[in-house]
Amino acid sequence: MVDVPELVARAREGHPRAVARLISLVEGASPQLREVMAALAPLTGRAYIVGLTGSPGVGKSTTTSALVSAYRRAGKRVGVLAVDPSSPFSGGALLGDRVRMSDHASDPGVYIRSMATRGHLGGLAWAAPQAVRVLDAAGCDVILVETVGVGQSEVEIAAQADTSVVLLAPGMGDGIQAAKAGILEIGDVYVVNKADRDGADATARELNHMLGLGEARAPGDWRPPIVKTVAARGEGIDEVVEALEKHRAWMEEHGALAERRLRRAAGEVETIAVTTLRERIADLHGDHLTGTLAARVVAGELDVYTAADELRASLTDPSFKARFASGAL
Amino acid sequence: MVDVPELVARAREGHPRAVARLISLVEGASPQLREVMAALAPLTGRAYIVGLTGSPGVGKSTTTSALVSAYRRAGKRVGVLAVDPSSPFSGGALLGDRVRMSDHASDPGVYIRSMATRGHLGGLAWAAPQAVRVLDAAGCDVILVETVGVGQSEVEIAAQADTSVVLLAPGMGDGIQAAKAGILEIGDVYVVNKADRDGADATARELNHMLGLGEARAPGDWRPPIVKTVAARGEGIDEVVEALEKHRAWMEEHGALAERRLRRAAGEVETIAVTTLRERIADLHGDHLTGTLAARVVAGELDVYTAADELRASLTDPSFKARFASGAL
Repeated sequence: MVDVPELVARAREGHPRAVARLISLVEGASPQLREVMAALAPLTGRAYIVGLTGSPGVGKSTTTSALVSAYRRAGKRVGVLAVDPSSPFSGGALLGDRVRMSDHASDPGVYIRSMATRGHLGGLAWAAPQAVRVLDAAGCDVILVETVGVGQSEVEIAAQADTSVVLLAPGMGDGIQAAKAGILEIGDVYVVNKADRDGADATARELNHMLGLGEARAPGDWRPPIVKTVAARGEGIDEVVEALEKHRAWMEEHGALAERRLRRAAGEVETIAVTTLRERIADLHGDHLTGTLAARVVAGELDVYTAADELRASLTDPSFKARFASGAL
Repeated sequence: MVDVPELVARAREGHPRAVARLISLVEGASPQLREVMAALAPLTGRAYIVGLTGSPGVGKSTTTSALVSAYRRAGKRVGVLAVDPSSPFSGGALLGDRVRMSDHASDPGVYIRSMATRGHLGGLAWAAPQAVRVLDAAGCDVILVETVGVGQSEVEIAAQADTSVVLLAPGMGDGIQAAKAGILEIGDVYVVNKADRDGADATARELNHMLGLGEARAPGDWRPPIVKTVAARGEGIDEVVEALEKHRAWMEEHGALAERRLRRAAGEVETIAVTTLRERIADLHGDHLTGTLAARVVAGELDVYTAADELRASLTDPSFKARFASGAL
């Protein structure tokens, strides 16, 4: 067993291996998961969480790396969580693109972590926020959560941020691809990277049009900015940081930050509660009860709803065990 | 309120409007949903359920229509459920492709139903089996469940059949597209439609290779056949029917049909139980309890696991209400 308070204390002091160890404990099915989360809780809520998403090839990793440099110049401690739900590699694996991050590998003010395991409850969409809590508790000022692929899980993970950045690059139909993937809706800040290439202005215009940014908004509404960058040369990165800071200020001014964090926590608590209930159904009865009920449904003796009621009763009704044992079901 | 026993009796007698009304009751959030399902249960389990899926443009609708004709010639009553999870139209809407089905519109031995609503519990993946039960109880011998789009939900729906048919058409990379969509794994029978076009043999070969059909199998294992068709001219349709019958015979001989139906029912019962629990969390407490817990998580007073425990306790622990009311939480 790990000495959790000791490990948390060392992570607070800035030992990268302690941070790495804690993330391993929370992303897997460690029996000490709950102990770790309880120890971290009072230390969280300080970091600002930025999500970055976009189709493959838009330069997410390069942009993330450039943002890390910018925040480091400003004296901030930075955490990077690179999440790849489609990767078969397990947590902590160095993904191909991560190599570019090696600029920051020796910087004690930067933690970089790749995550590709599915976790034990509800996959990465559940595991990522726990890893973010570790980085938060370890004293990061800013945490960049970068999703490597595109898909429903990636969108969910990126949307769990305080500020979500959606990246695009010039290219026919890229905006449409992004729209299909469902990522256009979640952006608080949009970045058109590789802006030195042909078509960057067209992409920005198309985006402006698709988002209805030209239309009138209620006073005080957030109007997502579109920032052009050439991340590989660091161009436009200060403007991205500025846009992030503006969004943060807007969020705080309008109470939107507290509201977003509250909604995020509520969704997380509910998901964990329901998933644990589902696990408990399996744990308590193995396949026995579900199998018995399913057989009766197949035989036409029971409809699925009544069967589901019985399954629920096994969790919530104290008299259930006696009834099941007596064969009354 | 609908007179459910009367409606079920009329559906059994073959009145198409009674069948349509029952499907409307089970696909929506009707308060009589449970009454309908209880009344249908003893009448189900007789129909054979065939799922059809494939990328847009492969000719699913034409193939379905040709299969209906073939089954009608053999004197079978046929139900067709065309499911389109991505359509914004509500249940019962006549989809564009459905027009081809008009061949069968006046045939009293055929029920055709489009489904595009999300249902009230867990979406179409949940609603489709309930509609299938109505068609089953109404006396259909064969039910063809055709999914219109491609995606995770479509694959799930098509996989809920006794026999799953995956359709492809000649064209570069079609097999790879199908593999990406996850539909290659679920086929019991494969159909290469539009086989009069260039590349049909190549598609069949590619499929044969991707499925490893040339490799040795254990004796008694099912080897999915690849049938070439030109559905628009009815060519190869008898061979598809024959392949379906062979798969059914194999399933029955090896106990696989009972096993598949059992697994399907178990999954359905569990999904309904868990979804109802989730709804009950919302019903019992509104957003109040979840909101209170989430606020404590955001403030760092509680970790998400402990918060989730409290939420679960609200459903399963009889002493919870008193503790919550007394402010002990």
